[in-house]
Amino acid sequence: MHKVTSTSSLGPGGLDLTQSFFKPIQNTAPPSPTKRHTKISVIGVGNVGMAIAQTILTQDLADELALVDAVKDKLRGEMLDLQHAAAFLPRTQILSSTDYSVTAGSDLCIVTAGARQNPGESRLNLLQRNVGLFKKIIPPLAQLSPDAILLIVSNPVDVLTYVAWKLSGFPSNRVIGSGTNLDSSRFRFLIADHLDVNAQDVQAYIVGEHGDSSVALWSSISVGGVPILSFLEKQQISCEKETLERIHKEVVGSAYEVISLKGYTSWAIGYSVANLAFSILRNQRKIHPVTVMANGFHGIEAAGEGGEVFLSLPALLGRGGALAVTNVHMTEEEVQRLRDSAKTLLELQRQLEV
Amino acid sequence: MHKVTSTSSLGPGGLDLTQSFFKPIQNTAPPSPTKRHTKISVIGVGNVGMAIAQTILTQDLADELALVDAVKDKLRGEMLDLQHAAAFLPRTQILSSTDYSVTAGSDLCIVTAGARQNPGESRLNLLQRNVGLFKKIIPPLAQLSPDAILLIVSNPVDVLTYVAWKLSGFPSNRVIGSGTNLDSSRFRFLIADHLDVNAQDVQAYIVGEHGDSSVALWSSISVGGVPILSFLEKQQISCEKETLERIHKEVVGSAYEVISLKGYTSWAIGYSVANLAFSILRNQRKIHPVTVMANGFHGIEAAGEGGEVFLSLPALLGRGGALAVTNVHMTEEEVQRLRDSAKTLLELQRQLEV
Amino acid sequence: MHKVTSTSSLGPGGLDLTQSFFKPIQNTAPPSPTKRHTKISVIGVGNVGMAIAQTILTQDLADELALVDAVKDKLRGEMLDLQHAAAFLPRTQILSSTDYSVTAGSDLCIVTAGARQNPGESRLNLLQRNVGLFKKIIPPLAQLSPDAILLIVSNPVDVLTYVAWKLSGFPSNRVIGSGTNLDSSRFRFLIADHLDVNAQDVQAYIVGEHGDSSVALWSSISVGGVPILSFLEKQQISCEKETLERIHKEVVGSAYEVISLKGYTSWAIGYSVANLAFSILRNQRKIHPVTVMANGFHGIEAAGEGGEVFLSLPALLGRGGALAVTNVHMTEEEVQRLRDSAKTLLELQRQLEV
Amino acid sequence: MHKVTSTSSLGPGGLDLTQSFFKPIQNTAPPSPTKRHTKISVIGVGNVGMAIAQTILTQDLADELALVDAVKDKLRGEMLDLQHAAAFLPRTQILSSTDYSVTAGSDLCIVTAGARQNPGESRLNLLQRNVGLFKKIIPPLAQLSPDAILLIVSNPVDVLTYVAWKLSGFPSNRVIGSGTNLDSSRFRFLIADHLDVNAQDVQAYIVGEHGDSSVALWSSISVGGVPILSFLEKQQISCEKETLERIHKEVVGSAYEVISLKGYTSWAIGYSVANLAFSILRNQRKIHPVTVMANGFHGIEAAGEGGEVFLSLPALLGRGGALAVTNVHMTEEEVQRLRDSAKTLLELQRQLEV
Repeated sequence: MHKVTSTSSLGPGGLDLTQSFFKPIQNTAPPSPTKRHTKISVIGVGNVGMAIAQTILTQDLADELALVDAVKDKLRGEMLDLQHAAAFLPRTQILSSTDYSVTAGSDLCIVTAGARQNPGESRLNLLQRNVGLFKKIIPPLAQLSPDAILLIVSNPVDVLTYVAWKLSGFPSNRVIGSGTNLDSSRFRFLIADHLDVNAQDVQAYIVGEHGDSSVALWSSISVGGVPILSFLEKQQISCEKETLERIHKEVVGSAYEVISLKGYTSWAIGYSVANLAFSILRNQRKIHPVTVMANGFHGIEAAGEGGEVFLSLPALLGRGGALAVTNVHMTEEEVQRLRDSAKTLLELQRQLEV
Repeated sequence: MHKVTSTSSLGPGGLDLTQSFFKPIQNTAPPSPTKRHTKISVIGVGNVGMAIAQTILTQDLADELALVDAVKDKLRGEMLDLQHAAAFLPRTQILSSTDYSVTAGSDLCIVTAGARQNPGESRLNLLQRNVGLFKKIIPPLAQLSPDAILLIVSNPVDVLTYVAWKLSGFPSNRVIGSGTNLDSSRFRFLIADHLDVNAQDVQAYIVGEHGDSSVALWSSISVGGVPILSFLEKQQISCEKETLERIHKEVVGSAYEVISLKGYTSWAIGYSVANLAFSILRNQRKIHPVTVMANGFHGIEAAGEGGEVFLSLPALLGRGGALAVTNVHMTEEEVQRLRDSAKTLLELQRQLEV
Repeated sequence: MHKVTSTSSLGPGGLDLTQSFFKPIQNTAPPSPTKRHTKISVIGVGNVGMAIAQTILTQDLADELALVDAVKDKLRGEMLDLQHAAAFLPRTQILSSTDYSVTAGSDLCIVTAGARQNPGESRLNLLQRNVGLFKKIIPPLAQLSPDAILLIVSNPVDVLTYVAWKLSGFPSNRVIGSGTNLDSSRFRFLIADHLDVNAQDVQAYIVGEHGDSSVALWSSISVGGVPILSFLEKQQISCEKETLERIHKEVVGSAYEVISLKGYTSWAIGYSVANLAFSILRNQRKIHPVTVMANGFHGIEAAGEGGEVFLSLPALLGRGGALAVTNVHMTEEEVQRLRDSAKTLLELQRQLEV
Repeated sequence: MHKVTSTSSLGPGGLDLTQSFFKPIQNTAPPSPTKRHTKISVIGVGNVGMAIAQTILTQDLADELALVDAVKDKLRGEMLDLQHAAAFLPRTQILSSTDYSVTAGSDLCIVTAGARQNPGESRLNLLQRNVGLFKKIIPPLAQLSPDAILLIVSNPVDVLTYVAWKLSGFPSNRVIGSGTNLDSSRFRFLIADHLDVNAQDVQAYIVGEHGDSSVALWSSISVGGVPILSFLEKQQISCEKETLERIHKEVVGSAYEVISLKGYTSWAIGYSVANLAFSILRNQRKIHPVTVMANGFHGIEAAGEGGEVFLSLPALLGRGGALAVTNVHMTEEEVQRLRDSAKTLLELQRQLEV
């Protein structure tokens, strides 16, 4: 475990001020071991992991931040770079190690690690390699932080959240995927930008599988509490389905566009995950479209088919993780698309060796 | 315990949405009882207590805020007034009760309750009445939150912090008084205002007994890290002792001035105590001049005289409370004044029945 | 104008550090007079005015804060109490004066001053006295800050916003009343508390006249973007009108309840107005139910009857003030109640001498 | 200029809601053109530029953020990635363009663009190439934002701040370099980490030339207002000079270490520059060690030698830029090292063609 002090040149024989500069108070007791403080671990310090870690730090969400990665130099470099900002931020302990022991006692473990697709590699093969990776990551995390919430960001996020759930043995409320939380934010931004209104005044969900087959819930879009679709009807404004689909396509295309332009996405996913971390750790009981166990919702009765499926649904998040799912009304078509995604995911999962 | 729901008209038979609007996720587990969240209790909802409570709320320092007071109506009114702001703030549970059970499991208990001086009443008599009040307040607080930090704001703060320590049976690191933290802030403001520089760039301590006999540590004043006194010497600028004393007098007079003008002080003490709460609960390890057990510092060896004494000294605050005292250099005169205050306090304490 | 330095004892002959401690840089130019900084003035330093001023300070919304009141001592006491917190907050210039010149160049003027009802005084008589007060307040504000937004908080807020508009000669987008912004927040809190969900996930408006005749827009209530009424219909949950009306009554009663319990309301209105100040000054383009000129909306065609009327409607707020009104759908009954309020207000206004 | 709307598929013929969803208020006036809002431009969207831009966004320091870079795709990708976070942040307008016109009317222009060293290229040659780059950057910035503060981050920062000053024609108070602000933060972190105290309680400056020849001001180090060196003397603790120099070397080495480990530095410089932006734009009058025109301080009388020199000194920052320099006492040796740096820089500048 790297901590600057231990590797610092200010070791024994150096400027030993601590003993004389501060003097203990009489009759004091050591801090109780049960003392509450908030610890977040981030697994993987690539662009996504670091954007998440840095946003968590700026927004002062943790008392302790632990970084884990397999690449030792990069890991230490990122830790030092964050630590050097200490004078500009409230005090947070920042640790890093290639060993998972550094994550012990976490309240929230955010997993961003993932293998990259090799040229010519099949999607299934890539996924199987990621399952292999998760077999090394999840069990130690679960063992060292048995009360933690697991938040999976690695892609494909829905299957990997299922995999993390399986490998952790955690109850399903404590295994969540970042899912369509960012897709929904992009959706809200596009609508807000079009209406020239604050994106925080736009409610709009994209649910289902994160990616191309995600489902935009048109009937739930509202601006300042006014449902857009029924508003249009009442104002007798025709709104072609085609147009709406184009907006959704633009959302689905956003991630690809950013990747094609700058090579990866980082900032928005960083804010998105920090936002989830806040709702969870500060028990905000806010509703977010994130990957949760979907069995039993909207007729996704996967149990009969021999499996559980994880998909994004509007979930109530708090200190206990995913506390419940909003019983949002969907059209027949929307439900059908959800079920189709569930089926695809189940088939994929059956081919995996977890 | 008042919580709006329970007294709301939305009771059984009303709009029972919760069951149907949210649906639980399968295979979930109840949140573990050891789940960490931060709870602050404020005892006394007068002007000072409410300025503290409201600043804590605005600065988002707690997940749960409990208010206690003997005056039932005022108490409920203040709770409702804070709760009505829910839409403008991160979610915080706000509770209130005349019963101390509402404070159970607090991380920090802030005591602002105190008796007012009756016409013609002696200072000692008033103090004895406050001791009587503390006998009703401190034991239940200590019992219901055995791991809490006690932060005493009631005046005279130094003696009452000693009384709270005695009554709680807590180790001394977990019983702190707001002491001269605010006096020091006023001192820093006056110096900063004079130099037209940010008050956060001014380091300056007032220590000792809170009030007329407090001690300004002239040698420790620095601006942007530059010690003022040695700067003046090196620049051969004469600085009359008289002038410095005038600044200190202005600080001592500030509280009286505000009280004579508006009837009480509230905002500054509210920010001051919220600032201490942040350093303690978020384990900031920052140095604040607050009331701590002073035996053993600067020759305050009161033990031999049969007692402990609490005074403001620059203390390192963190999750464990007052962790240590900065070994700041004082002049002979400054030390003598500290010891005189200690003596006066000890004599006063000997006359009290705790 | 009181500024601590000028009245401080650190005058000529004192500790004159400024000249020697800082040295100017060569070739510098004085700051241009057009330099942008944000100035807010608060008129009236009673409980409401001070809760607003203190929340604005904590939330760091202004570079300069000017307080005006007729009661000199109270005013100076409040200013000093805020200034003494300088070491705990980002630097803000805090000024106060009984003279309006201290408000010159404000971006936002918040008026909280108002006469209190005398025993046996008619509502009209009280209102006429408040108009008299506004004749002393509004013209100097408008003259000294010709580009400012006026935000009226004094009650009855709807008529007094109209009066302020008349007296200022400002375009209507720059004269706003706090209106039902707080009522709506209480409404959202009650619904959120019932559903045990974050109040920020609840969208719900109360519009119309602030007070007993306000109109709750039932059809616009949504939780996490899900419209409650149509949700209930689809789930075939019967929801009696009676129950809904009871919730609204509880909201209307909240202010009275808090006043009867603690004597006045302060914290919630403080947060509510600070929230409006943020949306306006930081050009947030957010939707708030506030008092705006209502002519032309929902058939409130008051012009023909010889007058303008101000009522709360969901308005888009930004740097230009009230930029537009959301074209929210209302039921026939809701519209009728709005029009009735408009009529009552117009009749009242006709009896006033503005 | 890229703005998402203009390139969006929601164009003419699409979902044209704006007209009907919001309705203007009667008698409104257009916002005055002098309306104040805060605009920051960041030139260069590499790792440093983006860490700065993102931190500025998270800390909500600007109403408008403009990004400029020569690489069109990367630039648009970064802008979109930030914009997609709209739903998680207060509303900020984010623009980008390869054309400097997008920066018009900025309050603060932060320049991070710089050429990279080619293999075998001399330092002077590299610098001359950067001067060439600045000739394209600075004149349009200065022309489009004649009242802006220029904040130079590109390296070598001291010479390039001088170059920017020359090219802009701005008064020297409005041309600042990030200088040793970050070095000082690293210094404070190392001392704080050693003492296990909050880095914000440590005052310590590194001044002079940013890089290997920087000067650590030992006599100005204080912790919680207590000067360390005189404390050690008074406690008769010997503190070898060697040890102190080792700490300074560790600071100087930090940047190199982070670069060798992760390939570049980003987070800490991002926080450091955002911190400067806050002090400047919110007129905080805080003291920061930054690059300013150093002629006339500590005997740096370069004018006689035919030139001006820019170096880091503890400067008071506010809305007018660098307002003054703290008259900090330095030892003979410290002053000599400053003068040596000044000489080296002047010689370098004489070889440049600006």
